[in-house]
Amino acid sequence: MGTKTRTYGITIGRMTAGERNQITDVHGVKVGHQTRMEGKARTGVTVILPHEGNLFKQKLLAASHVINGFGKTTGLIQVDEMGTLETPIALTNTFAVGRVYDALVDYSLERNPEIGRTTGTVNPVVGECNDMHVNDIRNRSVTKEDVLQALQEAESSFDEGSVGAGTGMLCYSMKGGIGSASRKIDLNHGSYTLGVLTLTNFGTLSDLRVDGKAVGRELSQAVQDQEKDRGSVMVICATDLPVSERQLKRILKRAAAGLSRTGSIVGNGSGEVVIGFTTAGTIPHDKPDQPLSLEMLHEEDMDEAFRAIRESCEEAVLESLLHAMPVESSKGGQRPTLNDLLEKTGCSLL
Amino acid sequence: MGTKTRTYGITIGRMTAGERNQITDVHGVKVGHQTRMEGKARTGVTVILPHEGNLFKQKLLAASHVINGFGKTTGLIQVDEMGTLETPIALTNTFAVGRVYDALVDYSLERNPEIGRTTGTVNPVVGECNDMHVNDIRNRSVTKEDVLQALQEAESSFDEGSVGAGTGMLCYSMKGGIGSASRKIDLNHGSYTLGVLTLTNFGTLSDLRVDGKAVGRELSQAVQDQEKDRGSVMVICATDLPVSERQLKRILKRAAAGLSRTGSIVGNGSGEVVIGFTTAGTIPHDKPDQPLSLEMLHEEDMDEAFRAIRESCEEAVLESLLHAMPVESSKGGQRPTLNDLLEKTGCSLL
Amino acid sequence: MGTKTRTYGITIGRMTAGERNQITDVHGVKVGHQTRMEGKARTGVTVILPHEGNLFKQKLLAASHVINGFGKTTGLIQVDEMGTLETPIALTNTFAVGRVYDALVDYSLERNPEIGRTTGTVNPVVGECNDMHVNDIRNRSVTKEDVLQALQEAESSFDEGSVGAGTGMLCYSMKGGIGSASRKIDLNHGSYTLGVLTLTNFGTLSDLRVDGKAVGRELSQAVQDQEKDRGSVMVICATDLPVSERQLKRILKRAAAGLSRTGSIVGNGSGEVVIGFTTAGTIPHDKPDQPLSLEMLHEEDMDEAFRAIRESCEEAVLESLLHAMPVESSKGGQRPTLNDLLEKTGCSLL
Amino acid sequence: MGTKTRTYGITIGRMTAGERNQITDVHGVKVGHQTRMEGKARTGVTVILPHEGNLFKQKLLAASHVINGFGKTTGLIQVDEMGTLETPIALTNTFAVGRVYDALVDYSLERNPEIGRTTGTVNPVVGECNDMHVNDIRNRSVTKEDVLQALQEAESSFDEGSVGAGTGMLCYSMKGGIGSASRKIDLNHGSYTLGVLTLTNFGTLSDLRVDGKAVGRELSQAVQDQEKDRGSVMVICATDLPVSERQLKRILKRAAAGLSRTGSIVGNGSGEVVIGFTTAGTIPHDKPDQPLSLEMLHEEDMDEAFRAIRESCEEAVLESLLHAMPVESSKGGQRPTLNDLLEKTGCSLL
Repeated sequence: MGTKTRTYGITIGRMTAGERNQITDVHGVKVGHQTRMEGKARTGVTVILPHEGNLFKQKLLAASHVINGFGKTTGLIQVDEMGTLETPIALTNTFAVGRVYDALVDYSLERNPEIGRTTGTVNPVVGECNDMHVNDIRNRSVTKEDVLQALQEAESSFDEGSVGAGTGMLCYSMKGGIGSASRKIDLNHGSYTLGVLTLTNFGTLSDLRVDGKAVGRELSQAVQDQEKDRGSVMVICATDLPVSERQLKRILKRAAAGLSRTGSIVGNGSGEVVIGFTTAGTIPHDKPDQPLSLEMLHEEDMDEAFRAIRESCEEAVLESLLHAMPVESSKGGQRPTLNDLLEKTGCSLL
Repeated sequence: MGTKTRTYGITIGRMTAGERNQITDVHGVKVGHQTRMEGKARTGVTVILPHEGNLFKQKLLAASHVINGFGKTTGLIQVDEMGTLETPIALTNTFAVGRVYDALVDYSLERNPEIGRTTGTVNPVVGECNDMHVNDIRNRSVTKEDVLQALQEAESSFDEGSVGAGTGMLCYSMKGGIGSASRKIDLNHGSYTLGVLTLTNFGTLSDLRVDGKAVGRELSQAVQDQEKDRGSVMVICATDLPVSERQLKRILKRAAAGLSRTGSIVGNGSGEVVIGFTTAGTIPHDKPDQPLSLEMLHEEDMDEAFRAIRESCEEAVLESLLHAMPVESSKGGQRPTLNDLLEKTGCSLL
Repeated sequence: MGTKTRTYGITIGRMTAGERNQITDVHGVKVGHQTRMEGKARTGVTVILPHEGNLFKQKLLAASHVINGFGKTTGLIQVDEMGTLETPIALTNTFAVGRVYDALVDYSLERNPEIGRTTGTVNPVVGECNDMHVNDIRNRSVTKEDVLQALQEAESSFDEGSVGAGTGMLCYSMKGGIGSASRKIDLNHGSYTLGVLTLTNFGTLSDLRVDGKAVGRELSQAVQDQEKDRGSVMVICATDLPVSERQLKRILKRAAAGLSRTGSIVGNGSGEVVIGFTTAGTIPHDKPDQPLSLEMLHEEDMDEAFRAIRESCEEAVLESLLHAMPVESSKGGQRPTLNDLLEKTGCSLL
Repeated sequence: MGTKTRTYGITIGRMTAGERNQITDVHGVKVGHQTRMEGKARTGVTVILPHEGNLFKQKLLAASHVINGFGKTTGLIQVDEMGTLETPIALTNTFAVGRVYDALVDYSLERNPEIGRTTGTVNPVVGECNDMHVNDIRNRSVTKEDVLQALQEAESSFDEGSVGAGTGMLCYSMKGGIGSASRKIDLNHGSYTLGVLTLTNFGTLSDLRVDGKAVGRELSQAVQDQEKDRGSVMVICATDLPVSERQLKRILKRAAAGLSRTGSIVGNGSGEVVIGFTTAGTIPHDKPDQPLSLEMLHEEDMDEAFRAIRESCEEAVLESLLHAMPVESSKGGQRPTLNDLLEKTGCSLL
């Protein structure tokens, strides 16, 4: 297969990647994009479907972790209280959150006629980053149809880079966007997978590290105009490990270690949020007669999951940079891609 | 002035109420409603404007506290991280959150042309309860115009009961909605005010207590169909006390004591969220040359604030019940008001 | 059996109490006290043993909730991170925490020769309240032997009131101390128990409510010297419900509703901490070959647990007051008991 | 001055270090050690005095952040609730926590005769790591006198490496212990300092990174017996920046970025806790007549503080490794130091 990082000869960490090295290596997970590029729009929406069934009826154990709360993600209060995810996760630009939220309500109502009638409501989870440096963000161009379309077209194979919600994002002062990576976790009792999808929009070029190497310091001499770190990054984590909500949250907290390794100082204006779920079992919406039976890891088995999310996160950020294609800003001009700068400067990642 | 609770001879606590006994006793605070009653709509929006200036440019210190996170309130991640409020607070029904969020974006963009151009984004705060038992919630009838209208018409004097976001709410199995109360806080160094606005949609009739008296036990014999406690309650708290974000959060946590005194067990499905701000100073959006100067209470002065929110919250819930007018459900039939039941049963609140 | 509250004709809530109406109604739980009354000492230690086996080797799922963090409880960081309890819980006075902590280390080392050799360390959980108004707290009189003795003599039947850690405590300006209560929880899939033990040292007399009645207002005319609310309260909750760590934490949060119903405003200086565990399963210290299998409630079954802790907590506080016996303060004089004041004033609880 | 890292030619980050490159570059901060090396003891205590006055009477704004809660640190519940520090911070081994806590009570009682008489109690802050691989931890050898001695001998110049609480600690499978570093922060309105002291006892050799370089991978071939990452790390942060409790907590959260950069995956058994304070103002224990006046940064000035703690933390860990001297384990044998391994392997840090 082929991820860009490995194409460049870089190996992040020591664990084995999944087949696609994408979040969709976790069985049942699908990702869809819709990209808006007309007029001054340079934006879009990316959706993560955690499983193929009716997620409202068969919820997944979920958790979240806020690294830096300068962000507008919706739904986390309930995810943390109830420990479950009951809609797909949608990512978009900051000002589109309301409309994308509304579209997830539509999506859920359509599939579940009893919502708001004989059962309660539904909790849409929408994450965002601010793409104003490339996209005309004041002109809210993402529509309900975009979200429904992205949900419908979601697949286990998906594009990375300047696509969907990633279309207008900047990372380390270069084009960022969607990146993904995964790791296999071998434990005594079975083989599991953990995958990550990042929407990258954070960091200052001079801080960029590639597997420890201070690549950003070299490259930054070639770039005049470095934006301050006021972007944000969203990390979505999927796994099939049998973990409790508490354990899942512990895993999510280690995403920060992966981001830090690429150079992040988690700037004041960089909203950084991690949302995760496990597909190891489902939580029925309707109360069964018996208590729910769940499996969870012994805590000593957690270290491999911690390492997996650290490696996946670090790699997913690099993937977002290496997949990114040039996008002309709505204000004119375009931000360089990492590939552009490597070529221009002759600098090597290794 | 005249609040209903006092009209009935009930005095909650021992502190003195503000002039109106409403959240607007805190200087500068205004409240506006828009009510949707056409067709099957029994819903609306209620907005709280914390001050009369440009809130994005002159933010207020703010905090939040989640009592029970079965809820979809937006904006709290950033309120807690940054300690500031930069939009009015809007309350509505659960499925209207996306649209009301979007309307607050509109409101902010219109007043601040630099948002999304030369400065960052804005963080809309929207709270909600589920009014599906009275309102046709699937048919999202609240519009952007409703929000903008409510913001425009907000005043320091406002209606309570079945109005705005409270139109379709049920509390203790009776009509609930908007309630408000306030308390004066006299400290060595000055006189302050703390006010509360509640959107009440929680509780089971048999649990209702009025200043300790088990009124609900008596009344519940007169009501056949008691909904389970799956509503929610939103508490908005305003004060002019000089407090830090941490201190404000400590105050907000005591709202739960007031709710509990009316009988709440904070049921599984009852999302209960408290959001508060202080008008004691403003935080400029643009960085000044000097550090910010702020005043805060000595911790020993906090007890009176704790008592004030407890008393205000308890009283505001009762106000919501006593102000509520009959509303015919979209499904036909109507929920009794507390006044109805008192009359029907001859039961006394005292 | 016989609890004092019921002897007085008061019934808190509508659920059925367990056989003893004590925390030890949860099978396997034992409680032990050691009381120090010599010289100026009016203090002691109370221990809660969650099960009869080796707790370090067979840990219990546990959680905590801090209502007001003006307190010195140890061990909660790890309880929340790992979701387990691995020592008995010990309660004592504020300045004895270090020594009681040290005694729990002794207790654990003695039973587990591998701790600190071939396996890691152990996490002692010690809670406290400040008994300085009755006890000469500066003279730390609780010893390691007291703790070990209390652990050895722990039984399923135990005294309440001015005993063990409760010896020098004041509650609502009267003698407080140890109180306990329990509730049976009947669900579709079985019958469960939830019990609470409180160490009460909080509240101002005029605020006291007994099942809603403003008893404190009446009694307060008979008492000159009311201490400010700067005590604290510890709540220990045991259950055999099959719940996850997250669910257990949700239950613990509702303890505050019970405390509030007795009149608490959770004063600035009143540290209020809730610690709970479930005996429904054990978590082995040593990693097994397979993932752990656990049961958890469907979230809709939680309401009865919420009600149970609310009722148990409210009742346990009253039990502590009604069981309390007069204790002469180390400074001379003695605080009245609730029984004293009822007799003196002729006031009725009903 | 001279720090080991810089002696090796390594420059972490781009900010300027303080004069000593130690936490004591923050004016008024002092550090003291007592080391126990007799018999099988390889342990000790390290204390941080935040200012020279009476800390109980003149408290400092403080906050904490738990990266991984597998730890027994005391006092954080109250630090977070009240936002203040009122005792020196003491670091020691895991089983000495109770005794060191007790010693801090002694220290505070001696200096404040009113504690436990006319005013309330005091909140000792004790952090710990598990030094069982080198020290005979079951034999609790740290005494009250050690703590009082360390407090008395604390100075602004202090040793790093295998000293005080660091005596028996291991970091990245080599000798760890005490490390420190600092950074100057130049803002429009003044020049400030942020310093960090770390007690390092975490990490697996093969993960070690030195300024990005995978030094551990090379070195690990020379070491047979690598302990699993079950140590812990304590980070103490001092600053004179005018920040609120919330802002201070935001700064402390970025310590994790510094630790991650040295290679940490924050293993399951690695308790990682950050505690910080600012000396920019004091909070009087006794209530004054007026509200407190405080300064705080505009949020946009926070980025430099975030970078400062990241750089200081990364450097302090390396300092602990480079200062560490060989210590014979209580079980015989001794762990290599980083200097040993560099010499043995010929590997370079650059």
